[in-house]
Amino acid sequence: MKDSQFNLKDAVAVLERTPAGLTALLYGLPETWIRATEGERTWSPYAVNGHLIHGERTDWIPRARHILAGETRPFERFDQMAQFTDSQGKSLGELLEIFADLRRENVAALVGMNLTEADLERNGLHPELGAVTLGQLLATWVVHDLDHVAQVARTMAKAYGEATGPWTAYLSILRDRV
Amino acid sequence: MKDSQFNLKDAVAVLERTPAGLTALLYGLPETWIRATEGERTWSPYAVNGHLIHGERTDWIPRARHILAGETRPFERFDQMAQFTDSQGKSLGELLEIFADLRRENVAALVGMNLTEADLERNGLHPELGAVTLGQLLATWVVHDLDHVAQVARTMAKAYGEATGPWTAYLSILRDRV
Repeated sequence: MKDSQFNLKDAVAVLERTPAGLTALLYGLPETWIRATEGERTWSPYAVNGHLIHGERTDWIPRARHILAGETRPFERFDQMAQFTDSQGKSLGELLEIFADLRRENVAALVGMNLTEADLERNGLHPELGAVTLGQLLATWVVHDLDHVAQVARTMAKAYGEATGPWTAYLSILRDRV
Repeated sequence: MKDSQFNLKDAVAVLERTPAGLTALLYGLPETWIRATEGERTWSPYAVNGHLIHGERTDWIPRARHILAGETRPFERFDQMAQFTDSQGKSLGELLEIFADLRRENVAALVGMNLTEADLERNGLHPELGAVTLGQLLATWVVHDLDHVAQVARTMAKAYGEATGPWTAYLSILRDRV
């Protein structure tokens, strides 16, 4: 799927499913799964949910609006650590609900932009990456969701890695990102 | 989590969530996502669902029973290609329902075994891996689910990889298993 193959309807179809997907996979799980990490400086499923919330608040739709407003300043930098303060005192269930609410609002905002093909080609300035298009931003929103869904599954899998004994040889996910 | 840290209740908590997780992520998605693959000889989300169904029918619970029956023969070999014939003519929605029904039955069967710590140490003979324990089989069931959830997310992510433009640099999932 090239740049030109990005399709807003297909993108929305994924974006609107992510909160329910994560809720179905994670809500009610024992803390041992929710708090598992892949090691130092890696994120638990709990941390990932906080990060997704911060993205809804400060990244995707704010940046889309920035581009559509014709801003020439670069985007605000994204805080990769915000979730470690913002999530304090909240249960995973609360985080999942906050994420679902924000995502619903943001998908509605995206659909309400009635973007044309020409809009998707409009440029923004990323503080590190330089020139990017609105279409690339929206494709990144989708892939970013999927990256974190995979991360949640991988992190949980690794928590049981040693317990699989000889089967470890068949479970490739245990050797991703090590 | 070592062998000794395997916990049946935690394992069941994951196993019983997988069908709802996949359904929430996939049901109703456009075919372009469902049929995406990572390239030749890799599986689409649709194929993964058929594979999970075949596992419910022939792998996990049958092998657990084989061990508990004290069988000294090796397990039956698992057919890694069965889904390409078994799924024919079925929609993804049908596959998700079949998987959910089989998983519900199999989790009930697992819980009904009232396994003791000693049971988890009982041995079976894998046709390729040799001696394995029931606990390792059950841990593998869990990790196998998570491996395929991650695969589904990774496969979908790669379908939009090029569309992310310069952001590709930040989306590590696009470089897993290439």
